[in-house]
Amino acid sequence: MRTLFATFALIAAPAGAADAPALSPGEIVAAAPAADWVPIAPADLLVMTLAADARGKPRQIVIQLIAPPFSQPWTANIRTLAKAHWWDGLAIVRAQDNYVVQWGDPDAEDAAKARELPVELVQTLEEGYTLRMESTTVVDGQASGIVQRPQPDLPLDTDAYAPKAGFLAGWPMAQSPTQPGRYWPVHCYGTVGVGRNLSPDAGTGAELYAVIGHAPRHLDRNIAVVGRVIEGIEYLSTLPRGTEALGFYSTPEERTPIASIRLASDLPQAEQPRFEYLSTQSAAFARYAHARANRSDEFFIAPAGGADVCNIPVPVRQTPASG
Amino acid sequence: MRTLFATFALIAAPAGAADAPALSPGEIVAAAPAADWVPIAPADLLVMTLAADARGKPRQIVIQLIAPPFSQPWTANIRTLAKAHWWDGLAIVRAQDNYVVQWGDPDAEDAAKARELPVELVQTLEEGYTLRMESTTVVDGQASGIVQRPQPDLPLDTDAYAPKAGFLAGWPMAQSPTQPGRYWPVHCYGTVGVGRNLSPDAGTGAELYAVIGHAPRHLDRNIAVVGRVIEGIEYLSTLPRGTEALGFYSTPEERTPIASIRLASDLPQAEQPRFEYLSTQSAAFARYAHARANRSDEFFIAPAGGADVCNIPVPVRQTPASG
Repeated sequence: MRTLFATFALIAAPAGAADAPALSPGEIVAAAPAADWVPIAPADLLVMTLAADARGKPRQIVIQLIAPPFSQPWTANIRTLAKAHWWDGLAIVRAQDNYVVQWGDPDAEDAAKARELPVELVQTLEEGYTLRMESTTVVDGQASGIVQRPQPDLPLDTDAYAPKAGFLAGWPMAQSPTQPGRYWPVHCYGTVGVGRNLSPDAGTGAELYAVIGHAPRHLDRNIAVVGRVIEGIEYLSTLPRGTEALGFYSTPEERTPIASIRLASDLPQAEQPRFEYLSTQSAAFARYAHARANRSDEFFIAPAGGADVCNIPVPVRQTPASG
Repeated sequence: MRTLFATFALIAAPAGAADAPALSPGEIVAAAPAADWVPIAPADLLVMTLAADARGKPRQIVIQLIAPPFSQPWTANIRTLAKAHWWDGLAIVRAQDNYVVQWGDPDAEDAAKARELPVELVQTLEEGYTLRMESTTVVDGQASGIVQRPQPDLPLDTDAYAPKAGFLAGWPMAQSPTQPGRYWPVHCYGTVGVGRNLSPDAGTGAELYAVIGHAPRHLDRNIAVVGRVIEGIEYLSTLPRGTEALGFYSTPEERTPIASIRLASDLPQAEQPRFEYLSTQSAAFARYAHARANRSDEFFIAPAGGADVCNIPVPVRQTPASG
């Protein structure tokens, strides 16, 4: 029983911590040195602009695409679709409470009206939805240099869905119960995945969803995870829920139009959003994870002694202006 | 490692299940016998009516209060406040994405303007936020008969925050790591809890919140859990997020007014909502939990082999009209 809490609970407790006032997770992140932040390449950012809301307010959502080696057939398709302006004028088609918001072509199932796809269907995948780490290379921050490593970053902790879950190159990951060298990216709040029909269809990336509720971890290894919303999730999570089965909207008028989806690298330089994430290899991240699992800042009276991987969101922020 | 998945994964697999077509969790619930459903007493239902939305649409939310023995000092206060119509005309004061929506008196901190409370502060609590089960009695469906039992219902499974988590009398519960006879109700999506200031303040129940994001299990044992939203959560989860720290609204105009909060038992009989939940002692619930942890209906290709307690929501439905 003790070992359940071993990793998040015990790692990285700083020397003398018992005497020092406990920092909150947010304070730990704010104090992290600049070198611990990894810039996200503009080519890995998807900028989604919804039609303005009822008050005329613009709604911009930024999605970070997952880095190699994970889910690359789908992220390649997504880049192609963004470059083709394929989503422009399409819509949010579904909003299901405590589950997902989904977007794409409302007429996708109607061959006569469906918008033509400039990408190939991803029908089969040798590696499936998981990856064997010893045979591959992990890329940490494409713009800023490549870090190769065959094993996930610490910490790894007990998980209800896998023997262990933890972080790798800035992403929450779980470890295969049957093949310990095999990992997969997990579904947390804000995760973006690829809608598909029944297997062997694996989706193209044209139909995407974002998680707006409790982590639907049962989707892990059943659907490709391609990214996460790092800004503007509230424009998706507050959309009116659809009243049809699975939260689909019952009329076209209920759908929110997509003005455009672009790769940030295809925007004029001045309009490119700039983000960075806290390296999951850094000591600051380990301290942050420890603090999330053992809240002992002022408000808390009973630290949990553990946390699930989706309750330790990887810190992401806009890159501060250089001074 | 194997034992991690033992309980949700292995319990209640029906004989011959390998040959039968797999039912989805929803299909299992729909097929549950009427006797497995436990009526919720109208005295345990809180009916919250928000001001109509911008299109004049009414917004009604129904909250089930947690049954004895859990959190009774607070639920007693909440009953008193509802009977006094105390919340009428107050407001939703906070909406923080992936966390909580909170309501109460916006002027609570201003002694000159705060609405007077007809209840005593719950400042200290001998039992704290957890309960020793062997010394107490659990009530399952107050209206329909009392079931006494000293231990939680199965299933219990591994949890990132406790040695085990499972269900008791219709509620998700976790087991103390240091005192195995001690349990506490956990924070999942839709859970309603009691806002408080710094300990030893434990809140009165006048300031309440509902979870609208990933289960904030670090709040367990730090805040009193008093209920769960069983209808209308979308009227809370889609509210515009507040722009101040912690999602508080920056102006009174942004707040959503509360028209009224009543106990269902204080409404005219014809207006009383009627709900029931699937007994967590029933074979149908065990099958449902097993299916949630091992999705093998048509869409799924890789069953998870486990699930966290908040990804197995206790089925609640409107009581079917007797025919």
